[in-house]
Amino acid sequence: MKFDVSPVSSALASALTERIDQKTKPPGALGVLEQLALQIGLIQETLTPEINKPVIAVFAADHGVTTENISAFPAEVTAQMVLNFLGGGAAINVFARQHGIDLKVVDAGVNATLPEHPALIAAKVASGTRNFLEQAAMTAAECEQALNTAAQLVTEWYETGSNVIGFGEMGIGNTTAAAALTALLADLPLQDTVGSGTGLDDAGVSRKQSVIEQSIKRACLEVDSARADPMKALRELGGFEIAMICGGMLRAAELGMVILVDGFIATSAYLCASALQPNIRDYCVFCHQSEERGHAGALRRIDVRPLLDLGMRLGEGTGAAVCLPMLVSAVAFLNEMSSFSDADVSGKKE
Amino acid sequence: MKFDVSPVSSALASALTERIDQKTKPPGALGVLEQLALQIGLIQETLTPEINKPVIAVFAADHGVTTENISAFPAEVTAQMVLNFLGGGAAINVFARQHGIDLKVVDAGVNATLPEHPALIAAKVASGTRNFLEQAAMTAAECEQALNTAAQLVTEWYETGSNVIGFGEMGIGNTTAAAALTALLADLPLQDTVGSGTGLDDAGVSRKQSVIEQSIKRACLEVDSARADPMKALRELGGFEIAMICGGMLRAAELGMVILVDGFIATSAYLCASALQPNIRDYCVFCHQSEERGHAGALRRIDVRPLLDLGMRLGEGTGAAVCLPMLVSAVAFLNEMSSFSDADVSGKKE
Repeated sequence: MKFDVSPVSSALASALTERIDQKTKPPGALGVLEQLALQIGLIQETLTPEINKPVIAVFAADHGVTTENISAFPAEVTAQMVLNFLGGGAAINVFARQHGIDLKVVDAGVNATLPEHPALIAAKVASGTRNFLEQAAMTAAECEQALNTAAQLVTEWYETGSNVIGFGEMGIGNTTAAAALTALLADLPLQDTVGSGTGLDDAGVSRKQSVIEQSIKRACLEVDSARADPMKALRELGGFEIAMICGGMLRAAELGMVILVDGFIATSAYLCASALQPNIRDYCVFCHQSEERGHAGALRRIDVRPLLDLGMRLGEGTGAAVCLPMLVSAVAFLNEMSSFSDADVSGKKE
Repeated sequence: MKFDVSPVSSALASALTERIDQKTKPPGALGVLEQLALQIGLIQETLTPEINKPVIAVFAADHGVTTENISAFPAEVTAQMVLNFLGGGAAINVFARQHGIDLKVVDAGVNATLPEHPALIAAKVASGTRNFLEQAAMTAAECEQALNTAAQLVTEWYETGSNVIGFGEMGIGNTTAAAALTALLADLPLQDTVGSGTGLDDAGVSRKQSVIEQSIKRACLEVDSARADPMKALRELGGFEIAMICGGMLRAAELGMVILVDGFIATSAYLCASALQPNIRDYCVFCHQSEERGHAGALRRIDVRPLLDLGMRLGEGTGAAVCLPMLVSAVAFLNEMSSFSDADVSGKKE
């Protein structure tokens, strides 16, 4: 699949800014909410933007590199957590219910036979990636399949009326893949992108860093070659959930949806997507700064200050879910607040 | 009225922490939401805390010191904005509707005859404070009346089932009062607490600082005397809305309610309240860092990192309203998430 993301038109920028400034408040007094209102209005090309049928999609997959002992939790937790999502007991279930978010759980490549379940979208590319210390995590065909499958799913969700989508993930070992991709695509030293994930100790973090270092060498990748061919970086060092998030984000941007970028893993997928199609940035709201080492540096590299910094590091799209009400607030003030003239409130002194 | 705020009991601290840690997530992975869940559980003395019937009370009052030309907006905007609250068109109306917050609008001392309206609580102490450059802003009896009235209102709201309350305000000129109180009670230099409010230019800010400096001298107040007698500081340099927020917060803490502390003005009221009753701190959630100069410094002085930093500076309780969903998330994950044993998810490797 070829993706082709257009930049957002700035045609309505001054009309939106005027509308925001006429609301009964000092100019700029709603801070980032005003910037969000402007961004969402531009994406939707309207002075009256709406948040409709928000979706969060959680893509789950396993990682061959877990055989190198780079995670504090055992690999079977990926499948166990998928069952937890289906049972409604994970953090993302709680926050999605709270905010009326339609939660989609996608088996992108879990290394287990999952039961049929009405809430599970079976889209397994393979039973986990290969160990990327030894060979490419996935073939080019598998990578393409992951991108296309996610793009197709996003199209379906869009067609049912959703105009906002957050991307979450579950995959024991995926901070290892994300740290490798982030080091390459954000041009950061490995010691700044490799963190403790679900809770590695210092020795574990060193081991993880060493595995990534050798894997990057094995793949013959460096910053310039990865940026020039992000799909190669993705198939060499990525994961099926990261590839699906990348493809899903690209398709969402093509469709003019607002994209909620969650934490470290989702941002690594964004880095792949934006290396391919830089215009995707216009559609993205960066939701929170993860506590996972590497996320703060990656966000600085792309000059982003996310909405929240609550020390969260759970993944699953939880940061995106917690941010959704702020987007709703942004469009709500734009649509519902009185203007100075409506409310007969005096403006600033001359 | 005498206030007597007990510290929160830590009896349930370890049971709450254990309950939080058994949820299906790496320990600590929900960051500040975990701290909030613990705090709310301790305040409510339960392992299953709830957010019930949240209230935001907006206290409105005028300030005699506006005759010194220390605000970018004319004083009549206070009354106009109260009418805007009653009409449902202000930012706080929008956010309160979004989050199911019961909004209470209180005339604490507006310098206008406001119409009778079912949504307006008429509790005017006087038609605005006196000009504190020349004399005390209010008498001791007026200050007492403001504290008691707010305490009585909070008691009524508590009795209808509310266990969470945010305090907002509207009052042209009130950043001048708040800057004076903050300089004294947080021991900060005036140039660090005096900001542009609703939009003063640099010359206006200088004038405002000079007015405050002279007023503090006129009142014979300094850091030590203000901290020793915060009620004197409040009646000399405060406002009726600030006094009501102070009394309302103290009463809410006595009743074991969760207190949402909004921005710069609300924090100045908190500083008065905590100088009287330091245990109030246990009940407070600091919601956001206002863009108004002085708020960041005041929060640093009391060693607080608020939930949000979105560049907002509107008042009205808008920062508190935007934060409410995070408190709901905190109690929801505690009550609704599965534990590792419920969900049959493996724990961390040994």
